[in-house]
Amino acid sequence: MDNTDISYGVAFVKRTGITALELGRGSARLLMPLAGNENHVGVMYMGAYTVLAEASAAIPGFSILDTERFFPILKDIAVSFHKSAASDVTAEFALDDKMIDALLSDLESKGSATYVAEIPMHDADGLKVATGTVTVKLLSYAWKGAAAGGLS
Amino acid sequence: MDNTDISYGVAFVKRTGITALELGRGSARLLMPLAGNENHVGVMYMGAYTVLAEASAAIPGFSILDTERFFPILKDIAVSFHKSAASDVTAEFALDDKMIDALLSDLESKGSATYVAEIPMHDADGLKVATGTVTVKLLSYAWKGAAAGGLS
Repeated sequence: MDNTDISYGVAFVKRTGITALELGRGSARLLMPLAGNENHVGVMYMGAYTVLAEASAAIPGFSILDTERFFPILKDIAVSFHKSAASDVTAEFALDDKMIDALLSDLESKGSATYVAEIPMHDADGLKVATGTVTVKLLSYAWKGAAAGGLS
Repeated sequence: MDNTDISYGVAFVKRTGITALELGRGSARLLMPLAGNENHVGVMYMGAYTVLAEASAAIPGFSILDTERFFPILKDIAVSFHKSAASDVTAEFALDDKMIDALLSDLESKGSATYVAEIPMHDADGLKVATGTVTVKLLSYAWKGAAAGGLS
């Protein structure tokens, strides 16, 4: 995984200028820049939060996969807004070892595995400005019915 | 309101190429183009759905306001993905007359009013590909505490 580009060739994501501050096996800490992502009154626009929440949730799952056999899809995403952010916004999420083992075990035995990531998002002063809740499903290419998922 | 540009000067929204198919007092029907908004496998990317859902929910509220006195903010947004969309995606939402009266009455008497918009989103074949749920708050500039809202 390239630390400087986490857009996976998705132009929509690349346009936001999102960057990785730290990536590990099962973990990610990401930054959404304010520049280019302002709303009409100069604070972070809603859509930038959803991209940040999704990437923070999905990249840790992606990072534990044998990507020749498995792939992640998004089931749903929700973001609640607490305060406006007049700065860059950061988010992080990590799957713990026990969760990683359970996900990989489910993938082998059932062809799919699901986790829900809760993603607090903070401005440059450390204030929690929004909270994301993202359901990520991991699927096997080989498993029957894998194509039925809501790929987004 | 300009029928061809509904981005309100927000570059993030403008970059998606979202357009209005129909706008009325308290109603909006919008189209999110697939072109430029594809994910890594060529179907509509998550972030484009959130922009479409938010705009479909907020523009009807905005359209009923005396914008010298009142403004809308976003409280929260959720999108569930049902099927992938390999085409443009449309959405529509309308506040009925009773709801419009209640919102305007709340704004006058309490300085704020809230509605929850459920936004089904359809692909070019009419299949429901996603559902958005968006909470929009309308606020008075003059009312004490208006600045506390989570503007996004």
